[in-house]
Amino acid sequence: MTAIDREIVLVDCRDEVGLIHRITGVLQARRLNIESNHEYVDPAAGHFFFRAEIAPAAGPVPADELRGALAAVLPAAARVRVTRDERRPIVVCATREPHCLGELLLLDAVGELPGRIVGVVANHADLRGLVERFGVPFHNVSHEGRSRDDHEAAFLAAIDEHAPEYVVLARYMRVLSGAAIARYPDRIVNIHHSFLPAFAGASPYHQAFARGVKLIGATAHFVTEELDAGPIIAQDVTPVDHTFTPERMAQAGRDVEKLVLARAVRLVLEERVFLHGKRTVVFQ
Amino acid sequence: MTAIDREIVLVDCRDEVGLIHRITGVLQARRLNIESNHEYVDPAAGHFFFRAEIAPAAGPVPADELRGALAAVLPAAARVRVTRDERRPIVVCATREPHCLGELLLLDAVGELPGRIVGVVANHADLRGLVERFGVPFHNVSHEGRSRDDHEAAFLAAIDEHAPEYVVLARYMRVLSGAAIARYPDRIVNIHHSFLPAFAGASPYHQAFARGVKLIGATAHFVTEELDAGPIIAQDVTPVDHTFTPERMAQAGRDVEKLVLARAVRLVLEERVFLHGKRTVVFQ
Amino acid sequence: MTAIDREIVLVDCRDEVGLIHRITGVLQARRLNIESNHEYVDPAAGHFFFRAEIAPAAGPVPADELRGALAAVLPAAARVRVTRDERRPIVVCATREPHCLGELLLLDAVGELPGRIVGVVANHADLRGLVERFGVPFHNVSHEGRSRDDHEAAFLAAIDEHAPEYVVLARYMRVLSGAAIARYPDRIVNIHHSFLPAFAGASPYHQAFARGVKLIGATAHFVTEELDAGPIIAQDVTPVDHTFTPERMAQAGRDVEKLVLARAVRLVLEERVFLHGKRTVVFQ
Amino acid sequence: MTAIDREIVLVDCRDEVGLIHRITGVLQARRLNIESNHEYVDPAAGHFFFRAEIAPAAGPVPADELRGALAAVLPAAARVRVTRDERRPIVVCATREPHCLGELLLLDAVGELPGRIVGVVANHADLRGLVERFGVPFHNVSHEGRSRDDHEAAFLAAIDEHAPEYVVLARYMRVLSGAAIARYPDRIVNIHHSFLPAFAGASPYHQAFARGVKLIGATAHFVTEELDAGPIIAQDVTPVDHTFTPERMAQAGRDVEKLVLARAVRLVLEERVFLHGKRTVVFQ
Repeated sequence: MTAIDREIVLVDCRDEVGLIHRITGVLQARRLNIESNHEYVDPAAGHFFFRAEIAPAAGPVPADELRGALAAVLPAAARVRVTRDERRPIVVCATREPHCLGELLLLDAVGELPGRIVGVVANHADLRGLVERFGVPFHNVSHEGRSRDDHEAAFLAAIDEHAPEYVVLARYMRVLSGAAIARYPDRIVNIHHSFLPAFAGASPYHQAFARGVKLIGATAHFVTEELDAGPIIAQDVTPVDHTFTPERMAQAGRDVEKLVLARAVRLVLEERVFLHGKRTVVFQ
Repeated sequence: MTAIDREIVLVDCRDEVGLIHRITGVLQARRLNIESNHEYVDPAAGHFFFRAEIAPAAGPVPADELRGALAAVLPAAARVRVTRDERRPIVVCATREPHCLGELLLLDAVGELPGRIVGVVANHADLRGLVERFGVPFHNVSHEGRSRDDHEAAFLAAIDEHAPEYVVLARYMRVLSGAAIARYPDRIVNIHHSFLPAFAGASPYHQAFARGVKLIGATAHFVTEELDAGPIIAQDVTPVDHTFTPERMAQAGRDVEKLVLARAVRLVLEERVFLHGKRTVVFQ
Repeated sequence: MTAIDREIVLVDCRDEVGLIHRITGVLQARRLNIESNHEYVDPAAGHFFFRAEIAPAAGPVPADELRGALAAVLPAAARVRVTRDERRPIVVCATREPHCLGELLLLDAVGELPGRIVGVVANHADLRGLVERFGVPFHNVSHEGRSRDDHEAAFLAAIDEHAPEYVVLARYMRVLSGAAIARYPDRIVNIHHSFLPAFAGASPYHQAFARGVKLIGATAHFVTEELDAGPIIAQDVTPVDHTFTPERMAQAGRDVEKLVLARAVRLVLEERVFLHGKRTVVFQ
Repeated sequence: MTAIDREIVLVDCRDEVGLIHRITGVLQARRLNIESNHEYVDPAAGHFFFRAEIAPAAGPVPADELRGALAAVLPAAARVRVTRDERRPIVVCATREPHCLGELLLLDAVGELPGRIVGVVANHADLRGLVERFGVPFHNVSHEGRSRDDHEAAFLAAIDEHAPEYVVLARYMRVLSGAAIARYPDRIVNIHHSFLPAFAGASPYHQAFARGVKLIGATAHFVTEELDAGPIIAQDVTPVDHTFTPERMAQAGRDVEKLVLARAVRLVLEERVFLHGKRTVVFQ
């Protein structure tokens, strides 16, 4: 999490024979040394994914030139990104529950988040004290006495002000409209407090209690228009037994939620996650 | 798993103040020493559950007299069981997949199952070799060319022949009728190859693949009339990632399935599982 | 974690027939309702452990009278404690690493710690900002230019000032003397950054890297005079592979350390941990 | 686990810029399609590891020619292997405990082992029945009344007879001499019943009990002359608590041992494990 001046190269295209050979050829011609790389071919879809970290070169890496050179040797419609490995700005949205937000603030404060929380936007004021303790701007955009559209516009304006690369919903309890999602396409990460697709929707711990499950979980996913159905980035579970009330399940669940969300946020901030239809490719 | 001659006392009744004091009074009056015990009160339902292992006494434990004495100090409608801690007979049902059945046969063969597999009934003949290797009777009751009812009657007859205390469905791929379930009430254990309630029904690994989950699981549960909705005994999960095809998910899942089923079967054979509405109380 | 006014009854004595019957008799005679209880008999040692949570009674629970009445029916030398279930004061000690301390501060701030951090004492000043952010007194007792004894005396004085019930070493990197340990007997909890007894002593992640382990862990334990050998309260592990440098192991390890320490601190604050020779009995 | 006719290419050499480009160039020139590949560079050691699975080509893959062509473009002293992805023969050694051996036999019998158990050699006769049930040759080479050297010579002769590619010690309770290890260099896999390096040597569960650990584990590793110190292939743990006697720890441990050993054996049989000094590189 210290000073990083690597470049990250991301490629995502139709699979063909020889792609790695071509990509590494372009890099080698520029004397760029690959520090680590991952690739994956989805054999059913015939699709190729590639991520490499390029060691700091003698001089600055010519990102645009490199992108062009890579595109020239790749199949048509290849997506190519060359991006600096740096601490990207994020805005975190919340409602009243502090555990997920607090975990992210703490990780940022102690240098364990590969990004920077540049603002927090909430529809209640409860979390102001926690957030300002960390010197982070807090916006309370209350939904009370406002239409849904009106509230969302103000909420988005508060987010936009900080020009984040990603938006993280850390137990933000309102559903975003399609228009809001389209403003940060594939860039909004949510934590759902169940092992999706089990217990989508409201009150997952009460649902889990009623069903008598022996594990409860949490799911971090990209937000799409279909509720709780976006591509999953990370999931984990923790054991429960018959002695757990819904309240104790929620308490145990909070520990899992914050860990799963932190893991997912770290992965997207390091540009390790590709969208692939309704699924994700995650290069750990 | 060696010689055991303990008694197990099981109590399940409306909660009242002083139940443990009364139960332990009855045991103490008979100089019966509790080796270990568990109790649980469901505060919402006001219900009490108790399980104790009674050390081998000087003489034989008078099970009927003990049961009567316990019932006399407990609330009306208390369920009281006094049962020997012995290796109970089970019948295992299967179709074609060997992994769950094989695990149970092997555990029995090496003395790690607190029960005895007295017979295997299957609707295909594929597993005969595996089963007979272990010296266990194998019945192939094919469903081909038979009505559903007719097949089930023959299938149940093959099970009945062995007078099992529990019936274990080890990837038996047919749905039992309500009448069949009623023949072994609360005594049929099934393994479902997903983390229920996610992916109930057919082809859970294909469902899991399509949804892009990052963990796959297995669920052992009692069989009830509602498909894949019976009270859960045990669950576990294993991580997967984008490189897993449905086939590799199924392969990884088989390892979880056999472990979860073995865990559940051990628990019921040791009489550690109480039914509690749609849930279970499991004293580990 | 909300308002609690239960009493906790703790008993620890030589095993005899009928102990639970006697204890529950004493409670019942006072119309005290057990909300939950645990007991354990170590069969080899012939020792009995008991913990019960007593529901809030109509009037105040007469703790001294109750303790006396319990002692009167128990074997000689029984240890009996009756203590209010309340948020006990703790002091946290640290050096420079913020992750374990930060986790405890955050849990306290958001109401997820069943105790209160009343002070932090550190031998470096680095963590002052983090601690004061949470409104907690911070004492920097530097060891530089001081004898070992002199430093420890000042350090202990800073702890004593807050009259804690437990002292938590949250990556405090100095070894306490026997005299210091005796000041808080069985009341000092430490986190060691390995799966003890593997990799006791210095630089466990470098040791783990050199040995090529596939899991790294953390251990929370009571502090005794023998370094890293005190009774273990909680342990956990996380997978690593060949791609992990010692630095990345340390990073992954920090997440486990903070979780394991938080779990252990919650357990001791709820008086769920009994010392039993070199081991612990933990009633979850 | 079905019919496989892929080739596996393994490379292990000093790191240099452009290695992947060179390797993929050689493959592409022969129209060989990489189905999946892994590479890893140890930055500290400056060493490169590569494994690829080559799709079945139109005609047979010219293994020798390919190896030569690869070696020609790689640094001096590169290790290059081209090997068919097939079910390699193994011999399993045991003493009296059936659980690890049984698991491997069962996996082989049901088609879940990417190898074939061609023989079992044991220094006791207890396991004969289990082994012969699976139609596998069983050799009892008793050590009684024999010198250590004499016994080992006979034991090795029984192994050699089956010309295995790997030898698996499935709770074989005798220490192999350096000479025996040298006969199957880097080809002997052992399961140790603890989380190494904790509790090396004899009676690990008694050691674990005495230390009061909260997790017990198992470690599969290559056998080297230093006891229980060979490079680790796989490890896992399972929780225990104060109620576990050493015997119950051993019982819980057996389930972990068999899983960890099976995982390690599958990995080596698929040629996914590189030795790297005292550690391993494992391409999952």
